[in-house]
Amino acid sequence: MLEHGGRLRAAAQRYGIPPGDWLDLSTGIAPEPWSVPPLPPDAWARLPEDDDGLAEAACACYGAAHALPVAGSQAAIQALPALFAAGRVGVLAPSYAEHAQAWQRAGHQLIRLAGGEIEARLDELDVLVLANPNNPTGERFEPSRLLDWQARLARRGGCLLVDEAFMDCTPEYSLAAHSHRRGLVVLRSFGKFFGLAGIRLGFVLAEAALLARLHERLGPWTVSGPARALGLQALGPASGAARAQRAGQLQAAGQRLAGLLSAQGLAPAGGTALFQWVRTSEAARLHDFLARRGILVRRFDEPASLRFGLPADETGWQRLAWALADYQKETT
Amino acid sequence: MLEHGGRLRAAAQRYGIPPGDWLDLSTGIAPEPWSVPPLPPDAWARLPEDDDGLAEAACACYGAAHALPVAGSQAAIQALPALFAAGRVGVLAPSYAEHAQAWQRAGHQLIRLAGGEIEARLDELDVLVLANPNNPTGERFEPSRLLDWQARLARRGGCLLVDEAFMDCTPEYSLAAHSHRRGLVVLRSFGKFFGLAGIRLGFVLAEAALLARLHERLGPWTVSGPARALGLQALGPASGAARAQRAGQLQAAGQRLAGLLSAQGLAPAGGTALFQWVRTSEAARLHDFLARRGILVRRFDEPASLRFGLPADETGWQRLAWALADYQKETT
Repeated sequence: MLEHGGRLRAAAQRYGIPPGDWLDLSTGIAPEPWSVPPLPPDAWARLPEDDDGLAEAACACYGAAHALPVAGSQAAIQALPALFAAGRVGVLAPSYAEHAQAWQRAGHQLIRLAGGEIEARLDELDVLVLANPNNPTGERFEPSRLLDWQARLARRGGCLLVDEAFMDCTPEYSLAAHSHRRGLVVLRSFGKFFGLAGIRLGFVLAEAALLARLHERLGPWTVSGPARALGLQALGPASGAARAQRAGQLQAAGQRLAGLLSAQGLAPAGGTALFQWVRTSEAARLHDFLARRGILVRRFDEPASLRFGLPADETGWQRLAWALADYQKETT
Repeated sequence: MLEHGGRLRAAAQRYGIPPGDWLDLSTGIAPEPWSVPPLPPDAWARLPEDDDGLAEAACACYGAAHALPVAGSQAAIQALPALFAAGRVGVLAPSYAEHAQAWQRAGHQLIRLAGGEIEARLDELDVLVLANPNNPTGERFEPSRLLDWQARLARRGGCLLVDEAFMDCTPEYSLAAHSHRRGLVVLRSFGKFFGLAGIRLGFVLAEAALLARLHERLGPWTVSGPARALGLQALGPASGAARAQRAGQLQAAGQRLAGLLSAQGLAPAGGTALFQWVRTSEAARLHDFLARRGILVRRFDEPASLRFGLPADETGWQRLAWALADYQKETT
């Protein structure tokens, strides 16, 4: 298993600080959860049914023609590589590491590419996998450029897979509206934007035939009843204004976080509304410095960097600001 | 996708009866759901963590050495066949059809066997897959016999997979206590016994090395936070008395259902606490007769048979009794 953010129990044990005392900024999950509405008893009791309207609600919300609900976009990441004949798969690097691992495990030949290398190497690839915006770098790809790459791949029977897990606040970059095209697969995450990572819900947007094959592979009832009921409510038209408000608040929070980090000499190299990415040769030291103060951030080694998620409240913002100021004092 | 019980929306549409008006006996799920306790907000908001004690609670409850929580035993059924080298797989027939389909899809050679054929054919097999008690027939296999088969398979590097989805009321038949042996895999279902099929929770009991490979294949966070929190509560030691009471009530209900069917000339050929299985050449006709009265049961074609789940309340019991009496009158 790869390491991920959110492993608070492990950090608590390592640093001898009770889980409840941490400021956990190690994930890119919205810190204020969408309010969980009362769920119908059948959502808990009965087997979930596919024809409950959830796929249609996702299509309408994301602007896609076809959607398959999955138990978190991770479930699709695990399963998709087996639907493609073994081939040469370009994977953006650095990026969310589960993609590379899943394609490699399924027997594909991996080619790790920086964003700037893709154009020159595209015609060697059968499949190109990237995240837009990228995690953890925050790098963004223009839709027109992605659609050009997609068309070139599709002409040779290839495919572009775009993980849009952090796309909700910048829908103008989404390829959802084009996802019915052959040779294009778009992943959307529900839990990050809505702050409900525990329910395990995501969507695959693609041509119907590919979704049918993926559904067959994943099997029936993969998404829980409570997750389906919540998704229906949160993605439905009645929640449109609340979603827009949430997007605005998260964008403002992301800018505030970028500003706070810059003010402490840690100007982000990139980011999204939900996280900021700081490249620094002191990543390991700063990670440890913060952890000793009960602040958990996500550390990456290649390249040496830290990813900061959003604090949930003013206490959290101040705690982060003070800790970073202390670090500045101690190191200058 | 195979057909399953619980597809109430489809039946409602076909028979022009609103979903709320049905008596749904088409599944083998306990009709009274375990009371859902208040769940910690983090169960919804945060990524689920593996070290929350759920695996340990399942081990203690089922009497197993190692357990991997999965998003319903169906998730394991889908994934397990790929962990075994292509081979000859004996699958009990008739049984829960997803097993045969999953092993076939993964490239194994299927040999469908009636319970009485297994002993004679065992030495041809690499893997033997059966459900104990079996669904829908209710056939039971003695643990001593299963352990003999398991030992013979394991000596040749083979494996016995026992789906114990309906085992909770008859734990004396379970192989959980032996599931750490190489060449034995036991599946347990959470949602059926607890009447919470919507949450998607099940467990794989097996040697640690196989569970690690399965976990790697399924990926992180496959079980939702609410399901984990509920599982911890329901399988924990504080719920032991409530579980025992539930088991007693379900066994009594199963006997009542068998009696009711017998009294209407439909003596079950087998069953468990959660369902009774009636072999009858009139399965299609009786299925339709009941559906026209808003009673949904599960129909099987090979052999022609019906599976009856438990009514949830006295109204449901009476409605079933009256409908069966009407059918008797009409056909005699």
